[in-house]
Amino acid sequence: MSETNGSGSTWERTARFVPPAYTPPDGEDESDATWGFADTRFVVDDSGIVRLTGSRYLLAGQDLPSLLPWVKDVMKIDLQPRKRHTYAFPPSSLPPARLNDAFMTAARALLSADQISEDAVTRLRHGHGHTQEEMYAVKYGQLGRMPDLVVYPDAEKQVHGLVQAALTNDICLIPYGGGTNVSEALRCPENETRMIVSVDMRRMNKVLWIDPVNRMACIEAGTVGRHLTEQLRRHGFTMGHEPDSIEFSTLGGWVATNASGMKKNKYGNIEDLVLDVTAITATGKLERRGQNPRESVGVDARQWMFGSEGRLGIITSAVVKLFPLPEVQRYGSILFKDFAVGVDFMYELAQHGDWPASVRLVDNTQFQFGMALKPKSQGWRAKKSALEKIFVTKVKGYDPNKMVAVTLVFEGSRDEVARQEASVYRIAAHHGGMKAGAENGLRGYQLTYGIAYIRDFVMDHFVLAESFETSVPWTQVRSLCENVKERVRKEHAARKLPGNPFVTCRVTQIYETGACIYFYFGMNHEGVDHPSEVYGEIERAAREEILKQGGSLSHHHGIGKLRQRYLGEIMSPTSIAWSRDAKRAFDPTNIFGCDNQHAPTTDPIARPRTMQTEVSQ
Amino acid sequence: MSETNGSGSTWERTARFVPPAYTPPDGEDESDATWGFADTRFVVDDSGIVRLTGSRYLLAGQDLPSLLPWVKDVMKIDLQPRKRHTYAFPPSSLPPARLNDAFMTAARALLSADQISEDAVTRLRHGHGHTQEEMYAVKYGQLGRMPDLVVYPDAEKQVHGLVQAALTNDICLIPYGGGTNVSEALRCPENETRMIVSVDMRRMNKVLWIDPVNRMACIEAGTVGRHLTEQLRRHGFTMGHEPDSIEFSTLGGWVATNASGMKKNKYGNIEDLVLDVTAITATGKLERRGQNPRESVGVDARQWMFGSEGRLGIITSAVVKLFPLPEVQRYGSILFKDFAVGVDFMYELAQHGDWPASVRLVDNTQFQFGMALKPKSQGWRAKKSALEKIFVTKVKGYDPNKMVAVTLVFEGSRDEVARQEASVYRIAAHHGGMKAGAENGLRGYQLTYGIAYIRDFVMDHFVLAESFETSVPWTQVRSLCENVKERVRKEHAARKLPGNPFVTCRVTQIYETGACIYFYFGMNHEGVDHPSEVYGEIERAAREEILKQGGSLSHHHGIGKLRQRYLGEIMSPTSIAWSRDAKRAFDPTNIFGCDNQHAPTTDPIARPRTMQTEVSQ
Repeated sequence: MSETNGSGSTWERTARFVPPAYTPPDGEDESDATWGFADTRFVVDDSGIVRLTGSRYLLAGQDLPSLLPWVKDVMKIDLQPRKRHTYAFPPSSLPPARLNDAFMTAARALLSADQISEDAVTRLRHGHGHTQEEMYAVKYGQLGRMPDLVVYPDAEKQVHGLVQAALTNDICLIPYGGGTNVSEALRCPENETRMIVSVDMRRMNKVLWIDPVNRMACIEAGTVGRHLTEQLRRHGFTMGHEPDSIEFSTLGGWVATNASGMKKNKYGNIEDLVLDVTAITATGKLERRGQNPRESVGVDARQWMFGSEGRLGIITSAVVKLFPLPEVQRYGSILFKDFAVGVDFMYELAQHGDWPASVRLVDNTQFQFGMALKPKSQGWRAKKSALEKIFVTKVKGYDPNKMVAVTLVFEGSRDEVARQEASVYRIAAHHGGMKAGAENGLRGYQLTYGIAYIRDFVMDHFVLAESFETSVPWTQVRSLCENVKERVRKEHAARKLPGNPFVTCRVTQIYETGACIYFYFGMNHEGVDHPSEVYGEIERAAREEILKQGGSLSHHHGIGKLRQRYLGEIMSPTSIAWSRDAKRAFDPTNIFGCDNQHAPTTDPIARPRTMQTEVSQ
Repeated sequence: MSETNGSGSTWERTARFVPPAYTPPDGEDESDATWGFADTRFVVDDSGIVRLTGSRYLLAGQDLPSLLPWVKDVMKIDLQPRKRHTYAFPPSSLPPARLNDAFMTAARALLSADQISEDAVTRLRHGHGHTQEEMYAVKYGQLGRMPDLVVYPDAEKQVHGLVQAALTNDICLIPYGGGTNVSEALRCPENETRMIVSVDMRRMNKVLWIDPVNRMACIEAGTVGRHLTEQLRRHGFTMGHEPDSIEFSTLGGWVATNASGMKKNKYGNIEDLVLDVTAITATGKLERRGQNPRESVGVDARQWMFGSEGRLGIITSAVVKLFPLPEVQRYGSILFKDFAVGVDFMYELAQHGDWPASVRLVDNTQFQFGMALKPKSQGWRAKKSALEKIFVTKVKGYDPNKMVAVTLVFEGSRDEVARQEASVYRIAAHHGGMKAGAENGLRGYQLTYGIAYIRDFVMDHFVLAESFETSVPWTQVRSLCENVKERVRKEHAARKLPGNPFVTCRVTQIYETGACIYFYFGMNHEGVDHPSEVYGEIERAAREEILKQGGSLSHHHGIGKLRQRYLGEIMSPTSIAWSRDAKRAFDPTNIFGCDNQHAPTTDPIARPRTMQTEVSQ
């Protein structure tokens, strides 16, 4: 009763392959003192015209004459090109390294000389991410405790050796990916008396294999997003994961943070994309024998590492899903009368399904901010732009101080994209939306990468700024956005801070049940004492308002240390105790001592054998 | 700079509601000795015509004259209507209950009299699922250790009280959902000396609230699938989760097993559908403050309970995603020349995306089996059927002993279904597929429910049968199917068992990276000693072949006790140790003592502080 014969179809015989080694382009040096590439920063000339240096981004090299006037108008502050809040980098005094001789001997036996750094600036850079508090401390204050050593393993066996040496010599290891977090996940615990070793994973950056038929690839965890994307592209694939930090963040960091990408509608969030994770832990290697599309086998290694934030081990590689490069990629944008109407549109689209790869709604402030970042218009473009402006604000009757924009990315087959465009614009028309073209859409997405450099620019001019995010059910989207912004304005006013706060939000991700909201908050601090702390107070007030409005503690930034104080508000004491007890079981001497997700309310009293929590019903 | 005004859109103000209490229909008694409803079973008359009793299923009440002749043809066994392998039910001797007086006192204080059962048959039924081994033991052997008491809490606080009483008195609790597992998850450990209490959750069966705008519902964990579906349907929603056991299995069981439904392409697997889980554990209540669409907050309670199989606590409720009832539901079926071509079709469809809610490929044996279950055709139908048969086998040149069938369910909007139908049939045409109509599709899906009763029928006639499943990357789908069936045939032949084995498979779920394969294996055992053990040997050989062919240990059935011996083959020792150590931390006295997922190789030696596993690279 054998039903088949022959040697199978061609596709069945196509095997996985090892792609050729990838050499990153030259000139990718990163800045130690600021975000991103060393060749890229915003500068301003004496006439107040802002430019982005380098040639990497759409914005780069163009005159941006509207930015400072707009900031002046909105924040009521006069940002003077020549008046700068200067800082010295590297800082004149950095804490000396506390080296453990036995560990150093072990490390030198495992690694070559260029894989070990005691350099102070390198150590400094490995002790922080990109929160406002950290970046302010780096430039104007003191970061405090920082790693004593940075190591750069280039193979899993070296990671294993380092973990073994850490166990033997009681060393604290903190895995390092792209250093892009905004959760203080990399900040060293002040009270850590052991030697702290930052394990920079970025030399583990190989695509180990690609399986084109089963659409999987095994990739080392230290591969940064831009290299991962490029290597897969050469073979006709994408992973489709595009967090805003994609240029610098790593695959391992995405898993450890439980990351989300802007195109998650098409490709999924990191937990949908990662089929398997291998990690070196204090008690051995977490790994699976193979990768199967979906399983029911209890808790697997993959689950432990998602959102682990460096607490449980070092992720060394992951097997990820691949997608063929889309046949078509198209951008789009739509204008709506006001934010409430924009949310109505987003909700209807969410209910409709068949979503574009990305759809984002920016509020009026962020819409205006985007306009302020437009380069000087010339010739025909200027004319067209002026005409468009008249049409939108006069003919259509939109109020420039209320209108909002939706930006869109469509990816897929020609039919799929055409169909999604049709349904999106049909739903937009229900809500009086006006198509505003592909170019505005493209600009909206590209701005994300350029904008990341603005924080450092404005920090030079006495403005502190930061982003934070949440997720919330649909019914609370609008009220959360309004109440959080209002809360920031009130907290700002109550402190009699100079000017107005810059506070704006966008809806960045949609789900059937709700959405992700992403906020920016900036404030001028000229003449303000302890400005970073003041900023932190207001940010915490905003976070508390988010929780009060039903928002989650984090959609994709993670907990780290910045948000750990609120863990007790979102989880029961038992949930927190399980996380703590699992950590103790898996890493009894706490060699992965980053101390993230440390909930203050539950620590460290011994738990009685009977139950702690009351149950009501 | 307030951007909005007014009191919001209508949809924003629509609140969650508590649905009216649901009264299940009368006459839903379940059988204690066999699968399913008490009113439904296959019977055979003296002339060999088989009928399904009752009126619940499409098959019910119709003459099935082809079944026994087909079985005779395929299995080379003469299944005699009058020759039955009789058994006594309830068994004459069942082990007495070991009652703990202090626990009994506590239970009586918590629960009313009708919530406590010491009845032997009830206890027996709560000590097993539906594996061949268990059902054979119930009928012809001895199940061994069984629960000493069955309790039926109807509120979370009662579950909490039972857990507290178990902690105080050192009692073993085993949560019970629908009792439908095929993993021995409910089988009591033979060496358990403590009193074993089965906690039947089916009186916790309320839909606590429905949030129609944010498309979520909070549902008690003991709600069985058919009642859950009906209650949501009344409000215009579905959860879309349809495991084959949906009539009897419970929401809590789905989470604990990490279940998958046949329409997962549209609605997702259980981990995609469940937003939040609340559980009572040995150390307190795992719960979250609210439900947000997606988060990055470390490991949350939800993750601990997926696939927990009763080891970590009792799931009391879950918040699930809802989908509006589909505008259109349509069935379809396609015939292909042979299994290899069918797999080619499935692979191309998987790569194409935009999948129907369900698409299944049955092999030739299962296709024939479906034909054999067709009722006696009459009049026009008979004529049409004969004509069709000639067309397929003569005109098209299909070999009746090689052809296979794909069955389809489309659900969604009119446009969506039309589009999916067009692409499915276009891809099918590439592979020479022939449309075989909606009726055959509908029958294919409905058979799933009716077929579940066949195992008990054939067991009465000296045939043991069981299903098992796996998931595997696409390139191995065909070879795995062929090799596993061949392995079963060889193992069967080597034991000189009577007749031929019945071994068949279907591809039941597709993913970008691979598929789920579902097998049936049946064997005649007249004159065979220890037939259940012999069956078990062959089933294990099949499982080992699956693992050898790159298949997963389970796609959705889970591990329980049946598959735990293989855990060491799919996970590293550290992965297994973490699972064991987490269990110890969360339930130090093992009150949730079902002992599932117990990997023999790692137990219970103390783990040294240094690492156990070698790392190679």
